[in-house]
Amino acid sequence: MSAEEIDVLLLTNPSNMYYLTGDGRLCAYTMITAEGQIALGVPQTDEDDVRELARFDHLATFEDEVGMIHSIADFFKQFRISKGVVGLEYTFLTKSMMSMMTHPHAKPDAVTVKDCTNILSQMRMVKESIEIELMQEAAKIADVGMEAAMASLKAGMTESQIAGEGEYAMRQAGAEGFWRTYVASGLRTRIAHGIPTNRKVKTGDVIMIDFHPIVNNYSSDTCRMACVGKPSAEQVKVYDVYLEALQNTTAKATEGIGIDELENTLHGVIRDSGYGDNIFGPPIHGIGINFEEAPLPPGHAFFHGEKAPPPLVKNIPIAIGNCGIYTKTWGVRIEDTVVVGKDKPLVLTSYPYDLEIKT
Amino acid sequence: MSAEEIDVLLLTNPSNMYYLTGDGRLCAYTMITAEGQIALGVPQTDEDDVRELARFDHLATFEDEVGMIHSIADFFKQFRISKGVVGLEYTFLTKSMMSMMTHPHAKPDAVTVKDCTNILSQMRMVKESIEIELMQEAAKIADVGMEAAMASLKAGMTESQIAGEGEYAMRQAGAEGFWRTYVASGLRTRIAHGIPTNRKVKTGDVIMIDFHPIVNNYSSDTCRMACVGKPSAEQVKVYDVYLEALQNTTAKATEGIGIDELENTLHGVIRDSGYGDNIFGPPIHGIGINFEEAPLPPGHAFFHGEKAPPPLVKNIPIAIGNCGIYTKTWGVRIEDTVVVGKDKPLVLTSYPYDLEIKT
Repeated sequence: MSAEEIDVLLLTNPSNMYYLTGDGRLCAYTMITAEGQIALGVPQTDEDDVRELARFDHLATFEDEVGMIHSIADFFKQFRISKGVVGLEYTFLTKSMMSMMTHPHAKPDAVTVKDCTNILSQMRMVKESIEIELMQEAAKIADVGMEAAMASLKAGMTESQIAGEGEYAMRQAGAEGFWRTYVASGLRTRIAHGIPTNRKVKTGDVIMIDFHPIVNNYSSDTCRMACVGKPSAEQVKVYDVYLEALQNTTAKATEGIGIDELENTLHGVIRDSGYGDNIFGPPIHGIGINFEEAPLPPGHAFFHGEKAPPPLVKNIPIAIGNCGIYTKTWGVRIEDTVVVGKDKPLVLTSYPYDLEIKT
Repeated sequence: MSAEEIDVLLLTNPSNMYYLTGDGRLCAYTMITAEGQIALGVPQTDEDDVRELARFDHLATFEDEVGMIHSIADFFKQFRISKGVVGLEYTFLTKSMMSMMTHPHAKPDAVTVKDCTNILSQMRMVKESIEIELMQEAAKIADVGMEAAMASLKAGMTESQIAGEGEYAMRQAGAEGFWRTYVASGLRTRIAHGIPTNRKVKTGDVIMIDFHPIVNNYSSDTCRMACVGKPSAEQVKVYDVYLEALQNTTAKATEGIGIDELENTLHGVIRDSGYGDNIFGPPIHGIGINFEEAPLPPGHAFFHGEKAPPPLVKNIPIAIGNCGIYTKTWGVRIEDTVVVGKDKPLVLTSYPYDLEIKT
């Protein structure tokens, strides 16, 4: 905080609150002083629940937004903070929420506001062993979901029904929710964000399935593909190109490498195979409590309020394979969750890579 | 727009873009001029897909955030807008996204920025017949989900597994996604936002199930409760109090009434029954494309960047029963999606009201 010239943090992003206190929830806040005092504010209904789950020094409860604002003012008084800088999460707060957190009845006039995104991103980027174990569990559950979705897949099912098969299996196996589920089929595999629709899968379609379960507050990210009926020669070729690009990139996910170098490796294989004009999207992103978090590729990071990523070190988990090769009528993407290692990477997601062929 | 002194809208909220163009997607924008010209910007992968789904006059595609920003600048030039006011969604954009949309390479210097939330909220509040038909379909699918979740419910299941049963049935029946799913059990029914966990349901628990499916881009909202084993006399009494409050309030959902009056009716029954100190949360909110949208109760609206709600008129759908009666060890909530009528309300969700008892 002192390096960023911030005197007190006022957090509302559940992921950041969870990381620092052991509990993150909606309509709540966490205030952290330079001396390390932790104050929480939660709806009055949640008092006993948060006492059981969170580590903190002070707790306020409130009935509504007015009460929330006044409780923030009370903590500023209690901590004797009447000037200095309060850090807010510019990458999480909407402009309206920002107005609420900095309302004149909440924040002392002389306290100025600064983005604290990077402080939390830096803290969360390198994972402890226990975090990697939790992500390993999340990866196993993503594999279970992929197996269920692939097993059910056949012509006539909607994309949403395929998503339902995967999500059902993941909730049975221990997922507590999903950041997002993508299932795209046929023409829809060429679009950037394949949120499932009621489009029915037809013979000849390729299908892209991308899962992001939340398990014990940690995430994993995996994407695999199938074809209903016989894939075309070009589909098989492009799939193999992407798989080679993914595997070459994963092999390099070791200490000291830059995200830009990994990006160049992945895009390089695709370019060398003649599909350079068909690439869309940054291929790498960090993953942990959130399914997309720092480190992000440099350009992407800038526009998303994050700092450019430092060279990777051991125990930074990343998702590799976030970009695609997109043609006019179909697209290809394969994605894994990988932990950067000292000498070799640890690949957490392990569903087989074959383009699954359903007849 | 002229009443709000806004010269051009620059939208990124998929719900607002869908409402005005027939298509809303991630990482895209819609620009609308005072003359009614509609310009879209989408990832280059999405060009053909958006051409099929959206109504628009101009289309730009981009490879990344830099391209997105430049395409916005190009539209400002093309529309000869070099001064005036651009409307942005302060209730949707994070501070970081706001910086991107107003980047000096995107927005002309002399163009100032203003919140346009209210323009869209006012347009979307009163629904057309076709919108109400779509919401009726979403309500039927929520009922299907509730039936499946209730049928599966038994001691030993996790909250997440119960959620999975409901979501699976809803995706089978035509849901394309969920705004959020709440399943809370036992002690967790007393908290404000019961996101499902791996807590196992035990005999003696009450269970709160609250579904928000998305069907053809429209939503519904319903909450019902069950008890595994025999409920206590107080649980039965409080449940009946809440049901009476809900039904009295629903009966009044006709043209001319204010949201504050509906709130007073619902809270009034609870207060008269001696549980006034146990109320938490505003009981009413609008619903449509989003599961929570304008109209919102006055205080809530203010802090969420929305205008105070006008008296209700025919064809405004609302969710009634968003607040709860919360004791130290359990809570109660029952919720329906209701369309305000001229003389009588139309209740869209119809799963039976009984406190379901599972033995």
